[in-house]
Amino acid sequence: MLHHRNRRTIRPFLAAAGVGSLALLAACGGSGGGADVGAIARERNLTDADVIAAVKTYQPTGRMDEYIMLASGGHSGQMLVVGIPSMRLLKVIAVFTPEPWQGYGTGPDGHKELFASARMADHDLTWGDSHHPALSETDGDYDGQFVFINDKANPRVAVVDLRDFETKQIVTNPNMGANHGGTFVTPNTDYIIEAAQYAVPLWTDYADTDDYQAQYRGLVTFHKFDRDAGRINEAETFSIELPPYWQDLSDAGKGPSDGWVFINTFNTEMATGGIEAGNPPFEAGASQNDRDYLQVINWEKAAQVAAANRGVRRARGQKVITLQTAIDEGLVFLVPEPKSPHGSDVTPDGRKIVVSGKLDPHVTVYSWDKIRNAIENEQFTGRDPYGLPIIDFDAVVDGQLEVGLGPLHTQFDNKGNAYTSIFLESQVTKWQIEPLQVLDKIDVHYNVGHIAAAEGDTRSPDGKYLVSMNKWSIDRFNNVGPLLPQNFQLIDISGDKMQLLYDMPIGFGEPHYAQIIKADKLHPFEVYPEIGYDPETMDTAADAVQPGQERTTRSGNTVNVYMTAVRSHFNPEYIRVRQGDKVVVHITNVEQTRDATHGFGISKYNINLSLEPGETETVTFTADEPGVYPFYCTEFCSALHLEMAGYLLVKPR
Amino acid sequence: MLHHRNRRTIRPFLAAAGVGSLALLAACGGSGGGADVGAIARERNLTDADVIAAVKTYQPTGRMDEYIMLASGGHSGQMLVVGIPSMRLLKVIAVFTPEPWQGYGTGPDGHKELFASARMADHDLTWGDSHHPALSETDGDYDGQFVFINDKANPRVAVVDLRDFETKQIVTNPNMGANHGGTFVTPNTDYIIEAAQYAVPLWTDYADTDDYQAQYRGLVTFHKFDRDAGRINEAETFSIELPPYWQDLSDAGKGPSDGWVFINTFNTEMATGGIEAGNPPFEAGASQNDRDYLQVINWEKAAQVAAANRGVRRARGQKVITLQTAIDEGLVFLVPEPKSPHGSDVTPDGRKIVVSGKLDPHVTVYSWDKIRNAIENEQFTGRDPYGLPIIDFDAVVDGQLEVGLGPLHTQFDNKGNAYTSIFLESQVTKWQIEPLQVLDKIDVHYNVGHIAAAEGDTRSPDGKYLVSMNKWSIDRFNNVGPLLPQNFQLIDISGDKMQLLYDMPIGFGEPHYAQIIKADKLHPFEVYPEIGYDPETMDTAADAVQPGQERTTRSGNTVNVYMTAVRSHFNPEYIRVRQGDKVVVHITNVEQTRDATHGFGISKYNINLSLEPGETETVTFTADEPGVYPFYCTEFCSALHLEMAGYLLVKPR
Repeated sequence: MLHHRNRRTIRPFLAAAGVGSLALLAACGGSGGGADVGAIARERNLTDADVIAAVKTYQPTGRMDEYIMLASGGHSGQMLVVGIPSMRLLKVIAVFTPEPWQGYGTGPDGHKELFASARMADHDLTWGDSHHPALSETDGDYDGQFVFINDKANPRVAVVDLRDFETKQIVTNPNMGANHGGTFVTPNTDYIIEAAQYAVPLWTDYADTDDYQAQYRGLVTFHKFDRDAGRINEAETFSIELPPYWQDLSDAGKGPSDGWVFINTFNTEMATGGIEAGNPPFEAGASQNDRDYLQVINWEKAAQVAAANRGVRRARGQKVITLQTAIDEGLVFLVPEPKSPHGSDVTPDGRKIVVSGKLDPHVTVYSWDKIRNAIENEQFTGRDPYGLPIIDFDAVVDGQLEVGLGPLHTQFDNKGNAYTSIFLESQVTKWQIEPLQVLDKIDVHYNVGHIAAAEGDTRSPDGKYLVSMNKWSIDRFNNVGPLLPQNFQLIDISGDKMQLLYDMPIGFGEPHYAQIIKADKLHPFEVYPEIGYDPETMDTAADAVQPGQERTTRSGNTVNVYMTAVRSHFNPEYIRVRQGDKVVVHITNVEQTRDATHGFGISKYNINLSLEPGETETVTFTADEPGVYPFYCTEFCSALHLEMAGYLLVKPR
Repeated sequence: MLHHRNRRTIRPFLAAAGVGSLALLAACGGSGGGADVGAIARERNLTDADVIAAVKTYQPTGRMDEYIMLASGGHSGQMLVVGIPSMRLLKVIAVFTPEPWQGYGTGPDGHKELFASARMADHDLTWGDSHHPALSETDGDYDGQFVFINDKANPRVAVVDLRDFETKQIVTNPNMGANHGGTFVTPNTDYIIEAAQYAVPLWTDYADTDDYQAQYRGLVTFHKFDRDAGRINEAETFSIELPPYWQDLSDAGKGPSDGWVFINTFNTEMATGGIEAGNPPFEAGASQNDRDYLQVINWEKAAQVAAANRGVRRARGQKVITLQTAIDEGLVFLVPEPKSPHGSDVTPDGRKIVVSGKLDPHVTVYSWDKIRNAIENEQFTGRDPYGLPIIDFDAVVDGQLEVGLGPLHTQFDNKGNAYTSIFLESQVTKWQIEPLQVLDKIDVHYNVGHIAAAEGDTRSPDGKYLVSMNKWSIDRFNNVGPLLPQNFQLIDISGDKMQLLYDMPIGFGEPHYAQIIKADKLHPFEVYPEIGYDPETMDTAADAVQPGQERTTRSGNTVNVYMTAVRSHFNPEYIRVRQGDKVVVHITNVEQTRDATHGFGISKYNINLSLEPGETETVTFTADEPGVYPFYCTEFCSALHLEMAGYLLVKPR
């Protein structure tokens, strides 16, 4: 029924023209639509910089984007897939929050099991606060296979398979109250790193904050990733007990610093707030010290200690290396860093660690060689209250550079430059790493949190594009009520001066961080590889229904319906049961045409499935309410889509 | 802390330049960023038409869009707010599906009541299949006050207030199995129209389809809207019993046809499918007749009949005008229309009704004058099996025009032209209404369902823009797995020939329909009008907490926490309770700065609120699980946002 056509062709004169004013005229004032670009630009009050930005970002129909950005969706609980340079939202990936378009958590038995495995404190969880996506890496470069993301609110980590952009696993962390320093991966994705944020009691289930220093603890967890299985192997996951400072962002070492991880902390004051009792609130109490600590952790050695069960305890079933063991084995060291740090970012060559403190206008650059030497030579200035050695700041710092007020997070390009988000001044500062100097600043709008550069967390960043993830948009977009979108601003970083290209409102969720991968590294399925494929196992389903095998069977009070979906009917078109029956619908979309997705929604039974070409799903429910309930295809699939329907008839007992 | 700045200025040479080649050069090859447009266009393989499209759609930072599109989100259950011409997603409005970024259904007691009121068949419903948004109208023009939308899967209608773009009410329809022909409003928004789709038993709770013709019924419901209250007044809502044909799209009359509504039907065959029993499936059985019926309904008279309780019965509590009464009172008439129709669209002047049948290549245009005359003169050719009079097709048809294969839905411009989506050929056809002739066709990509034109459903369409809402995107965007985005294509309809301007992937939900309103008609709140405002009542909350009034009180096992949120702390910072306590948190965001939204998320208790400036919410929960649970601000609000936190301490019993 569908006609594949693309009548669009590149005008020969453009492809062939040389550089020069004639070509410019041809390009800009040519015959397209009878209009001329200059007149349109004037009519629309566009500057020449605007026209250039438009032409740098516009993607005509059918044009693929060069990069794909995987952004967290913040407390939407989801992830966002955005094309660059067009800044178009290609997909929302449902992760922690049920989403019916994807049939995620609104029917399939597999999702019920996933959500059941992801409960915490005996509560069903239907949201998450997704923060930091991490693409899987091979040898320090994104490999396009998986993306991971943490839930800050309910300390969890999810695994998304980039073959079908679907969530496959959610792992809970029983020993954290909330996380923040995750997810970050080691350079070959051996481990997915999750660091805590607000400390909670570790070795006891309950303690008031009167016992904060004795009972509350920080934590970092290393989730072992099994790449072949595409799953975290919790049996090989381990944690390290840390002082009850609040951990913040993290980054894994690479190259010479591979085997180590660098985790910022704040609230080394161990303030416990309580404004209602006349105490300084957390914002003041946690901002008193001039220095907090960068935690420098030898995860490679820690993994050996954990594997050997040396000085390890179980907390709520999880293997935890105790703080004493961490000290004894030399796993954790503290490096002083400027007050209330946020970003911790390892340079592409793995030789430096860049830290920026939101209450200090500098970036602080540490030398990995110097840190390693200081550790080997025990250049410690003392120990923290928990006995962790504190490395001499002056022995390991490479330099500090004033970049602006409220520097948060740093990314890198392919020319030895770094870019730091400046929250209070709403700017991005471009600076040179060696020797340290500020090169350029650009305004952003407004209150930038993270920034993300093309392949910016890898050993080989691409430069070219940087996205400023601004928290406030204020006056940038049409008023859509008191809850405003965020603003992703695309910046061209290919030249000496940064150039603002595009404002993308994010009117769904509040993204915290993103990674940007070259699009040609991704190789997703166009359709599932065979008819009867189960996305939960990424294999043929045992109960796949092939055409001709459709049937309904009854065994006691259980009715099994083996159904197929094809344009434009279900088979069978009736599910006739008695009130109280358990109904199990096994349904296969037997199409192999790209985009020939069918939905399966049942009226008033709160069930909707999304069946992509080849996909099999199973949904089990109790026919508890008698009556007549239409079911129908919820995805507009064909001219006779509205006729793709049937009835669930639940006969009263 | 935030610096409002906009250093962007229009280059004087552009504003001042006259039309001519020099201006073109200046506009295109000027000094902006040292680049030239022609070179960039060639490097990016852009045609001159592409460059023009780029310049017509690009919005530099801070530039407002001219139109706002309210689109359904299909089975995401939400609505989408899109700016035109930039085609940027400004917001997702949570309607039928909980959404934590907006704190919708993830905490506030008011939302719990909303969802409780929206249950059906004794099931919690956490999704909907949102189809057709309808903007409120005054005198046949969008007034920018409200937008309504239906849930096809669970026959419901929702009310969204455009002061804050939030859902205020969801009304269930107990007498439908699923709806489709909704929502559409009468020209002054007296009624919100909802027509059924798949017929179900009306006067009995259960009947098998053996009794289809006797027991199953179609239905149209007129929900009375109380504009002052901003709510549907169900006490004044009424329905009309209809034959068990499947109703489809509808449109209310306007101008001379005001007081009437025109509802398409298909499956006038009353086929009941059953492919598994050797019957033709619905797609075949429901497509046998050459003609189906347009239902022409006098809603103004029906409202009087319902108000007078003449020939009215109650079905599941709802006032229903019986089919016999509809016949006796002359409320419903049938007009034959081409096989399996979809769109029913009244021209802006209210004088014609355009119907297109997806299995017929024509649009059929009826004259309202002729229909009214035929009704007055009883020019009937007979009656349907239920006794409804059938109007003589030839007496009322104005003309038919071949527009392409699979015409679905028609919109209008300000020059007397109509635009019809052509599903099977993936085109939009532009045609002239008087005299009937095809003017232009444009390819779209692919499988267009609805189309939406600027102010296209009003008495005064604007022309200028049309959006083609394509169901399949196939090869238009980067591969993001087997579930593909839809594709909204923006088309310039200001000239003689339609021009494709932009492809917008919709990677969230499957929008069915949209309406496009001039942006300057919308006047949403920038912040809530006072501190302590309750969005559920749109009034000051009785339990609003003003600064200085923060406190915690206990009464028996109930703990009331009166909390404020401000950059960058909560007050109080501790909620100390005993296991089993009922906890009621009354929380007010005391800010009045635009965009100063705070979130309130509690770890592991599945609670997240979004508190826009001035907003008050109340959340009640049982502290059933002992332990230590951080709570924190989930919306990045300030440099010390991470410190905006506290603890819920649940002491074990």
